[in-house]
Amino acid sequence: MFDVLIIGAGPAGLTAAIYTARNNLKVGIIEHNVPGGQMVNTAFIENYPGFKTINGADLSMSMYEQVVALEVPFFWFSVQEVKKENDYFLVIGDETLKAKTVIVATGTVHKTLGVKGEAELSGRGISWCAICDGAFYKNQDVAVIGGGNSAFEESIFLSSLVKNVYLIHHREGFRADETLVSKVKEVPNIKMMLNQKVTEFIGKGKLEALRLWNVKTNEESLLPVAGCFEFIGFNPSTGFLKDLAVVEASGYLAVDKHCATTVKGLFAAGDVVQKDIRQITTAVNDGAIAALSANKYLK
Amino acid sequence: MFDVLIIGAGPAGLTAAIYTARNNLKVGIIEHNVPGGQMVNTAFIENYPGFKTINGADLSMSMYEQVVALEVPFFWFSVQEVKKENDYFLVIGDETLKAKTVIVATGTVHKTLGVKGEAELSGRGISWCAICDGAFYKNQDVAVIGGGNSAFEESIFLSSLVKNVYLIHHREGFRADETLVSKVKEVPNIKMMLNQKVTEFIGKGKLEALRLWNVKTNEESLLPVAGCFEFIGFNPSTGFLKDLAVVEASGYLAVDKHCATTVKGLFAAGDVVQKDIRQITTAVNDGAIAALSANKYLK
Repeated sequence: MFDVLIIGAGPAGLTAAIYTARNNLKVGIIEHNVPGGQMVNTAFIENYPGFKTINGADLSMSMYEQVVALEVPFFWFSVQEVKKENDYFLVIGDETLKAKTVIVATGTVHKTLGVKGEAELSGRGISWCAICDGAFYKNQDVAVIGGGNSAFEESIFLSSLVKNVYLIHHREGFRADETLVSKVKEVPNIKMMLNQKVTEFIGKGKLEALRLWNVKTNEESLLPVAGCFEFIGFNPSTGFLKDLAVVEASGYLAVDKHCATTVKGLFAAGDVVQKDIRQITTAVNDGAIAALSANKYLK
Repeated sequence: MFDVLIIGAGPAGLTAAIYTARNNLKVGIIEHNVPGGQMVNTAFIENYPGFKTINGADLSMSMYEQVVALEVPFFWFSVQEVKKENDYFLVIGDETLKAKTVIVATGTVHKTLGVKGEAELSGRGISWCAICDGAFYKNQDVAVIGGGNSAFEESIFLSSLVKNVYLIHHREGFRADETLVSKVKEVPNIKMMLNQKVTEFIGKGKLEALRLWNVKTNEESLLPVAGCFEFIGFNPSTGFLKDLAVVEASGYLAVDKHCATTVKGLFAAGDVVQKDIRQITTAVNDGAIAALSANKYLK
C-alpha cells in the first residue's frame, strides 16, 4: 500500500514526487511514456527560471534523475482505471497498485486535425515532435501547423535542419509570444502561410504534399512537403477517471486551491487541471501543492 | 513610461521579468538588495525541479542572468511608495519611475524574537543567513533557532563548518519535512534543545551566550555560543503600498487567480501574496501568471 501514487511523470508529477518523498511518504510514480511529459517534445525551453536555455529532453532528464535520487519507484504502464474502495484507491493497468492517495498529473495529448489522410500518414511524415523527427527531413521542405509558442519554437528549431519551413496558420494573428513571432520573421527559410487550412494529407505510404484551402480567397493549392509537424493544441488525459465523476465537461479536472478534487484523497496537478495558463512554472507549482495537500490529508 | 515595473527580484519577480520580456513588453525590475530574495540565504535547495541540489546563491544568479540576457534593466533602490495617477503608476524611491502596470513581488523579511540584546547584537553574532555568516564561526559553537525547513537545512549546513550546532525550538514538534528531521538526528554535532525559549542575547560588542528558559521545567540556563542564526518566520514587505488599500490585515496581499489585486493594473506574485504554501515552485508560478495577466491587461 502506497501513501501516494502519482500518475504521470511530467513536471507536475515529478515535482509531486520530490515533495512527497522529501516528506518520507511511501510514494510511487506511474508513466506509460518517457518522463518529462510535453517537455520532452520541446526543442528548447527559455522560460523555466534557472535555465537560460535548455533542451526539453535535458530538463526532463534532470527532473527525472532528481526523483530517482530520492529512491521513488517508477512503474512503466498505462493506467486504465482508478477505483476508490473504502479509504484507498486501486490504480489499474498492466499492474494493480493500491494507495491511500492519488495525484493525477497525466497532462494532455496533442490534438489532430481529423482530416483525410492524417491517420494513414501519422508517423509516416506527420509528426508531433520536431526534436524527435526533424532530422529525418534534412535538406527537404517541411510544414508546421499552428499559431502558438510551440509552432513558432519548433519552426525555429526545424529551420536549422531542413531546407524550408512552411508555417501554416488558419488565421492572420498568433497566440505565440511576440518575441518568437519577430524571431521567426527574421529566419529566411521560414515562410509564413496565413489564412490557410490543411484539408488533406496526400501521399502513398509516406507524406508527399498538403492540400491547402485559403479561407480568405477560397483558393485551393497543393504544397509538396516531406514532413509535417502539427502543433494545434492538446486534449486532457482523463479517460481513465470516468468512474470517479471528477472530470469536467471540458475533459479537464476541477480542483480547489489545494489541488484537491471532490473525491477525498484524489488530487490533480499540472496541465490536466482546468485552468487558464499551462506552463512548466505552473505545473511545478501544482505538483508541490498537491504533494503537500496529500501529506496533510494523510496526517 | 514602462509597460510593467516589477518590484522585487526574487524567484517571482525574476520569472515575471522573463515572461514579460519574452512578450516584448517594456519592463524594468527594482530591487534594493541582491537578486534572489530568500533563495540567497539558503545554503542548499533540493526541492526546485531541475536541480538535484543547488546552492541558493547559484540558483539566484542563474535566474538573474536569465533576465539580464533578455535586456531587462535593473534599478537598485528601495521602493517607498506606489501611487496610482489616472491610468498609470508612480513607483517612488531614490528615483521615481512610471509604469502602466506594477507587479509586486517583494516577498517577506525575516522575523525577529524581539528580546533583550537582540537589536544590539544583530550582525554581531546574531544572523539570518548561515551561508553568509557561517564561516565566521569555524570550530566554535553556534545556535540555530526555529523548527521549520530553514532551521533544519541551515543546521546541516552549519554542522560541517562549526564545532557544535544547538538547534533550539520552543516546542517538541517540528514543521520541517521528516526527511530533514531524520537527517539532522544523524548528525553528531547537532544537538536538539526542545521546549526552550531564548529570552536574552548576552554579550559585550559581540554575542557570547543565550539565556534560555525551558517552558516545561521552568528552568533557566545560559548557553555560551559565538553565533546564533534565527529562522523563525517572515513578515510580508508591503508597507510601501499603504495608500492603495490592497494590504490585508495579515500584511499580505490578496489576489485573484490571475494574480490581480483589486487595483486595476496592480498585480502581486510570490511570498508577498496571501496563501498557504510559499515555495520557489509556487513563486515562479505566480510570476508567470502575473506577467501574462499584465500582458493581457495591456492589450
